[in-house]
Amino acid sequence: MPVGQNPFPAMPEILGIKLGTTNAGIKQTVRDDLLLIALAAGSTCAAVFTRNAFCAAPVHVAKANLAHQSRWLLVNSGNANAGTGQQGMTDALKTCADVAEVVGGQANQVLPFSTGVIGQPLPVAKITAALPVVVGQLDTGLWDKAARAIMTTDTFPKGVSKLITLDGHPITINGIAKGAGMIQPDMATMLAFIATDAKIAQPLLQSCLSVAVEQSFNRITVDGDTSTNDACVLMASGCASMPEIVAGSEHYLIFADAIMSVCKQLAELIIRDGEGATKLMRVVVEQAQSDAEAVRVGKTIAHSPLVKTAFFASDPNWGRILAAVGRAGIEDMILEDVQINLDDVCIVRNGGVASDYTEAAGQQVMKQEEITITIKLGRGQAKQEVLTCDFSYDYVKINAEYRT
Amino acid sequence: MPVGQNPFPAMPEILGIKLGTTNAGIKQTVRDDLLLIALAAGSTCAAVFTRNAFCAAPVHVAKANLAHQSRWLLVNSGNANAGTGQQGMTDALKTCADVAEVVGGQANQVLPFSTGVIGQPLPVAKITAALPVVVGQLDTGLWDKAARAIMTTDTFPKGVSKLITLDGHPITINGIAKGAGMIQPDMATMLAFIATDAKIAQPLLQSCLSVAVEQSFNRITVDGDTSTNDACVLMASGCASMPEIVAGSEHYLIFADAIMSVCKQLAELIIRDGEGATKLMRVVVEQAQSDAEAVRVGKTIAHSPLVKTAFFASDPNWGRILAAVGRAGIEDMILEDVQINLDDVCIVRNGGVASDYTEAAGQQVMKQEEITITIKLGRGQAKQEVLTCDFSYDYVKINAEYRT
Repeated sequence: MPVGQNPFPAMPEILGIKLGTTNAGIKQTVRDDLLLIALAAGSTCAAVFTRNAFCAAPVHVAKANLAHQSRWLLVNSGNANAGTGQQGMTDALKTCADVAEVVGGQANQVLPFSTGVIGQPLPVAKITAALPVVVGQLDTGLWDKAARAIMTTDTFPKGVSKLITLDGHPITINGIAKGAGMIQPDMATMLAFIATDAKIAQPLLQSCLSVAVEQSFNRITVDGDTSTNDACVLMASGCASMPEIVAGSEHYLIFADAIMSVCKQLAELIIRDGEGATKLMRVVVEQAQSDAEAVRVGKTIAHSPLVKTAFFASDPNWGRILAAVGRAGIEDMILEDVQINLDDVCIVRNGGVASDYTEAAGQQVMKQEEITITIKLGRGQAKQEVLTCDFSYDYVKINAEYRT
Repeated sequence: MPVGQNPFPAMPEILGIKLGTTNAGIKQTVRDDLLLIALAAGSTCAAVFTRNAFCAAPVHVAKANLAHQSRWLLVNSGNANAGTGQQGMTDALKTCADVAEVVGGQANQVLPFSTGVIGQPLPVAKITAALPVVVGQLDTGLWDKAARAIMTTDTFPKGVSKLITLDGHPITINGIAKGAGMIQPDMATMLAFIATDAKIAQPLLQSCLSVAVEQSFNRITVDGDTSTNDACVLMASGCASMPEIVAGSEHYLIFADAIMSVCKQLAELIIRDGEGATKLMRVVVEQAQSDAEAVRVGKTIAHSPLVKTAFFASDPNWGRILAAVGRAGIEDMILEDVQINLDDVCIVRNGGVASDYTEAAGQQVMKQEEITITIKLGRGQAKQEVLTCDFSYDYVKINAEYRT
């Protein structure tokens, strides 16, 4: 059960961006598991990839191909093509060549993405056979189907749409993502695809995406594990009837802000659908000496199984939060300067439980489905936020029963 | 249910080291929860403490008092005296003064230790009232009772005894420990007390302990959380009929080796009793460029909830191990050079599943209660080992239901 109601939003078409899906029979027998995204000529495309040293074959290929004029993104769910050795590289390259042949393009203009079980050979023949079908489906109106085709154990499709206006010109931004932790898909977890009809050069698009990802997808954690296949792509078709967005302009600031907003919303949807999640926790670290310090403290709390199980149990066990702050590896932290709030309730002050704190007030907050934990370190001005979910029986169940 | 059978061993007396226990009613109403260890005049005492920045009041006091001639260790279970602010310091100092008054010594010769619930005031009056009883109990033969008195949610008392002979002189080493993760005691987790009748100066004893702890207690993890109260103490009464052990001597090498052995055995007992543990996993990292690199990879694997739930399910899900190695933050690691074994079964080679691996062979190993995961990085000569346990429903249950 995900946290909250998460209906799929209305997602308008984006000129120059077409989508096609089908069931290729990779792992699913009914649900679509293959997505092709086609970009109009002249589109620009930026991407960020997992930092896992052992990234999957498609990640290697997509990274290399990004240097060329990307025109097609091929995404399959049900198989991660990770831990597949040299054969995996051959397979990833073969699917790119297949796309190029069907659409009449260059293989290096295709970016491949895979998510699903790792260590099993990619069923290339099935993908090859399905490609003409997918190409025949290509249409600008299929964002909902696209979001469903990339799901693995996600319990709902994830989409965000945003309309901005620059000098009276409407610009649309659509984003879809899949996540759920690292469960059924094992560790081939997060994929996000964001598209816009804005016109913007590739280097600036890349910079815009990198900044946004750092503040959104890199600020969420379900279990602290980093997938071998994580990727986030930002595509700009340039089909909107307005001039190019250039660096330093007011237009860029508005555009970048909107991309950031879409990334943050998609990231939050991934956490809401975190494996076994029953609660969404925002860990806000304030008064840190630097952003890096704030993030470090926030992630230490967000990764702590002790903190996460306490939230699952709606237990305002502040000692676990305090201990996590203490072991974050920040030198010369002064316990007496630290303040911890659960929403508006101050729970720790002056090195111990706050004198005005009551267990009833703490439990009232803990019963909620969404909780903000605010840590004030009393060391500086930096503030950062990390999103996570709680740790339930279902987390163990989902991860233990995988493959059985 | 702990991993394996873990009977308490016969523990001979150590001349110059007396123990006394009683029920002070701190949290337990029946079981002993207060331990006093008395060291003969002239004993030396070394200790290492938690690196958590927010260490508990008794840790602060014990660290300071260690500089004096330590003669008494006062240990209570049921209350951690952590997150208790200035009052906690006052309380810890008061218990030391109380011990000094009853035995007729100096307050700064007392080292206080607490383990149990955090954030609640230490019931000093109960401890004060119980001290004369404990002092009246002092005896050299009570190691079993001492091991039980420091337990919190441990399911069995943990003791190790070792006899070595130096030039025909017998030297006894006894060690007791409590652990269990950070559950009922919350985060006031690991305590270990090791005593010997050897004669050895304090600086050398401290060096001996620091080396041993680094290779034993610092190589285990249940959930990656570091307690506010962790401490390990090594006491030497000097009552054995033999000359002092000095630095660089063969005697020292034999003695240090025995201390290392006792620490490693106690550390393993803590993991066997890890919260919800059903399996013991030895993560051996070989062919690393440095010890630090080997430990880093080992701990990343040992901390991964995905790896730990897979072992709970007896699922040889090597992709999760591989992904953990990949995100350990080691630069320029080459996937094709990495080999992963489960006991004798090679499961990953040349960047993918080993050609001779069979799922049946993998599952055969996974069914065992104790499993060695060997990772060969193919980068160097360093080798290190980390011990951990699996991650079960009971882990969530124990931690979620705490305080309810």
